[in-house]
Amino acid sequence: MLTGKSFIGNSRGAGSDICGSGINPANGEKLSPDTIAATSQEVQYALNIAEEAFFVYRQKSGAEKATFLRAIATNIEARIEEIVARGPLESGLPEGRMRGETGRTTGQLRMFADLLDEGSWLDARIDTAQPDRAPIPKVDLRSMLTGLGPVAVFCASNFPLAFSTAGGDTASALAAGCPVVVVAHSAHPGLAEIVAEAITEAANQTDMPEGVFSLLFSGGYSVGQTVVAAPEIKAVGFTGSLKGGRALMDIAAARPEPIPVFAEMSAINPVAILPSALGDNSESLATAASGSLTLGVGQFCTNPGLFFIPSEGAEAFTEKFVELTKQVAPATMLHGGICDSYKNGIYALNDQPNVETLLLVEHDQFGAAAPAIFRATTQEFVSNKVLSSEVFGPATLIVTYQDHDELLALAEYIDGQLTTSIFGNETDDIAELISVLDRKSGRVIFNQFPTGVEVCPSMVHGGPYPATSDGRSTSVGTMAIFRYTRSVSYQNFPQLALPAELQDQNPLGIKRLVNGKSE
Amino acid sequence: MLTGKSFIGNSRGAGSDICGSGINPANGEKLSPDTIAATSQEVQYALNIAEEAFFVYRQKSGAEKATFLRAIATNIEARIEEIVARGPLESGLPEGRMRGETGRTTGQLRMFADLLDEGSWLDARIDTAQPDRAPIPKVDLRSMLTGLGPVAVFCASNFPLAFSTAGGDTASALAAGCPVVVVAHSAHPGLAEIVAEAITEAANQTDMPEGVFSLLFSGGYSVGQTVVAAPEIKAVGFTGSLKGGRALMDIAAARPEPIPVFAEMSAINPVAILPSALGDNSESLATAASGSLTLGVGQFCTNPGLFFIPSEGAEAFTEKFVELTKQVAPATMLHGGICDSYKNGIYALNDQPNVETLLLVEHDQFGAAAPAIFRATTQEFVSNKVLSSEVFGPATLIVTYQDHDELLALAEYIDGQLTTSIFGNETDDIAELISVLDRKSGRVIFNQFPTGVEVCPSMVHGGPYPATSDGRSTSVGTMAIFRYTRSVSYQNFPQLALPAELQDQNPLGIKRLVNGKSE
Repeated sequence: MLTGKSFIGNSRGAGSDICGSGINPANGEKLSPDTIAATSQEVQYALNIAEEAFFVYRQKSGAEKATFLRAIATNIEARIEEIVARGPLESGLPEGRMRGETGRTTGQLRMFADLLDEGSWLDARIDTAQPDRAPIPKVDLRSMLTGLGPVAVFCASNFPLAFSTAGGDTASALAAGCPVVVVAHSAHPGLAEIVAEAITEAANQTDMPEGVFSLLFSGGYSVGQTVVAAPEIKAVGFTGSLKGGRALMDIAAARPEPIPVFAEMSAINPVAILPSALGDNSESLATAASGSLTLGVGQFCTNPGLFFIPSEGAEAFTEKFVELTKQVAPATMLHGGICDSYKNGIYALNDQPNVETLLLVEHDQFGAAAPAIFRATTQEFVSNKVLSSEVFGPATLIVTYQDHDELLALAEYIDGQLTTSIFGNETDDIAELISVLDRKSGRVIFNQFPTGVEVCPSMVHGGPYPATSDGRSTSVGTMAIFRYTRSVSYQNFPQLALPAELQDQNPLGIKRLVNGKSE
Repeated sequence: MLTGKSFIGNSRGAGSDICGSGINPANGEKLSPDTIAATSQEVQYALNIAEEAFFVYRQKSGAEKATFLRAIATNIEARIEEIVARGPLESGLPEGRMRGETGRTTGQLRMFADLLDEGSWLDARIDTAQPDRAPIPKVDLRSMLTGLGPVAVFCASNFPLAFSTAGGDTASALAAGCPVVVVAHSAHPGLAEIVAEAITEAANQTDMPEGVFSLLFSGGYSVGQTVVAAPEIKAVGFTGSLKGGRALMDIAAARPEPIPVFAEMSAINPVAILPSALGDNSESLATAASGSLTLGVGQFCTNPGLFFIPSEGAEAFTEKFVELTKQVAPATMLHGGICDSYKNGIYALNDQPNVETLLLVEHDQFGAAAPAIFRATTQEFVSNKVLSSEVFGPATLIVTYQDHDELLALAEYIDGQLTTSIFGNETDDIAELISVLDRKSGRVIFNQFPTGVEVCPSMVHGGPYPATSDGRSTSVGTMAIFRYTRSVSYQNFPQLALPAELQDQNPLGIKRLVNGKSE
């Protein structure tokens, strides 16, 4: 039974004011219950107990934290029918997507649990003393990673499970030893509450300290701003708009003690099609391109919002791409705000001089988006910033290039991206193109489309600004844990005062770097 | 023959205005030559060629970069007599320190060269495809670290070699594949020029692209500010004051594209002495404490500026500590500005109510500092922020505590530090104290003093703000390279389009994580 009330550790917030509710984006109808905003006292209490919990939680062994993460996964799975009943109503996403995203969420939690059990992620390093070294003795020094402190996590609208309450930010922060204060997204309060119950139950089942997890409901931005500015918080995870992410970055940078913000924000994920990829392959390429563009109503961070294609020889591709995409019916977007932004975005493109509209469907389906395709020349693209702004949803711009030099110039022109893709032949000389694209993006892809983000050790779901706030990070895959960690050195420590991970006898049996050699 | 002119790649800046010169801090006399400020055109040109050099330099193999770093080390050693002739004149540091610091500098360069040769620092990860996986195929994905782009490095006054032109920031940035634009420190232009010649010569000897290194002379702050704000620059390394570091952080955070700043800024390096460390050991402890406090005229970032000692039972320690420290003669500081700040700092402490002055020597030696020792109670310390401000130089404050709880409260009270130290007995129960101190500092030390920073894989010379701008980083040791790197994923790439480090046959023979297993 949903209540719309915050989770302040083990307690439920009494709240004060109604700050909204779930809304069915397919018809605009309000869903029960009302969401109740956390009071400022409740917010401060959640911060206080997160700080207190950090003392206890960071001392938990990897095995204990792994047990906690696995219990969260199990408890989420136990609520799958609640999730698939509520999720589609408040997100517009179909049941199958809810089931798939639940699997991804629980898979991520278990991936981090496995990482904790294995232990080498800690980067344990031991340099033993050399008392006889001249001219000065060498001291005994050992280091390993530890958690930064309480982390604020903002739920994303486009992944109400996998990038939300128990999503990758929360899973990686908890794995790193950091308590989490989640700021719920106003668009899916029901899913936030269902998953928060699963986490709170797991924390109690596995003897985790109160405050290791809280979930705050709020209207507007003030609670999020308060949390990011709070001295108890030591890092931030966010997935959302460039405007929202940059606002959090600016708050964090202006604190008396600045803290890192890991915000995944804005990408148009350019796809460069080389002449060699066309010809006989044009039709299958167009089919795949249209599928990637319209998958999930174009609401993925890795949606291909930009195609670079040769100005000659791409007619078959373009024709087929438009034809197939035109057949995709309008579909409900995540919420009304996103749908309005999408419509504003495509009509803005439609209104640009020297931009051809290849596909723009008028329809009156409530809250829904129909795909749109535009075309411009390289010269037009590089002279009009509107053309390289993100339009979140199933819209794309085809930019035509005359030759390989013009393609390289396009690659140089684009901002930082989550992904860039190249379609061509294995024998094409693409070394220079790659050397431009891998400076601009976190993931470079050959002959595949960018949608579909594998959760694995080598995934970089990040990229230079404005794709993310910090191009040195990823929000997906095992490397995501490093966002919330720092190394600490222990010098000349008695064995028993050292963390078990750094003791001589290696009681946990983890991989370590000992006097410069992996052991 | 020194010229006082900037190094703009392979050219020497013509400059425009005289912006100062070296000054002998022991007598205030001006040293030849005048320093000539880089013009704004020269600054911009250095930035342009750094950006161009990045394209070429980042593609150099680890072995090629290692050869470059080793050539720099060799070329610096070839200039050792120039260094020891000039360095003491402009820094006040003795010849022995110049020789030692040169060894440290060349040692760091060779350490990073070895790291490049070994290759596992790249964190190469390979996850091979599983085309038959259900419900969706698994793609081939591989990742490794790469350099961020050109890095701005600011020379430190207190290490004119090891944290300056070819110091740890430059060595780690070059190792990461990043060109470096160094902003010289006004206090040691001669050493900057000698070392810059060594680097430029090495770049030419090893066929590195022009622009991989530049050195800018300037007066005031404007060139430094310009460089940090420049779009060509992708990260900053700095060692200096909190005020200076924070100013650079704020500039970097306000850029259209914010960039990371790694600033090592301010630490007082508290030393907690437990009752068990006193008694028979008081005298030897006092001797070591006095040695650490006065080493190098107290001008190390890890100088112990704060002692927590028991209010009872520490008389013998305190008496001996003061007695020994009183015997240390005034000595020349690095430059007049530091000396003035030191004097202001100690007289400010002397003027605080409820602070006892145990040692304050009046002297009239030009540009020199005499050690100073003050004492206050815990209650006074936690109620007066002046007492926990850094006084750079051989001054320290003894804070007396009544019991272990009061010591824990002191540990909780302090800001982020580079180091914290505990002196006690191996059987003392220090678990809780450690759990406070390792949240507050980058390195926790048992029964040793914090001065002396070993350059090795497990060294963390960093710490939570305000010790550094980013407590997740270190400026000393092999982990320093990670400040200037990001991971990039390559998906579904043809073998020959992959970097050699990620190709199936592992032509470089480096350690990699393949399908989750270290190989």
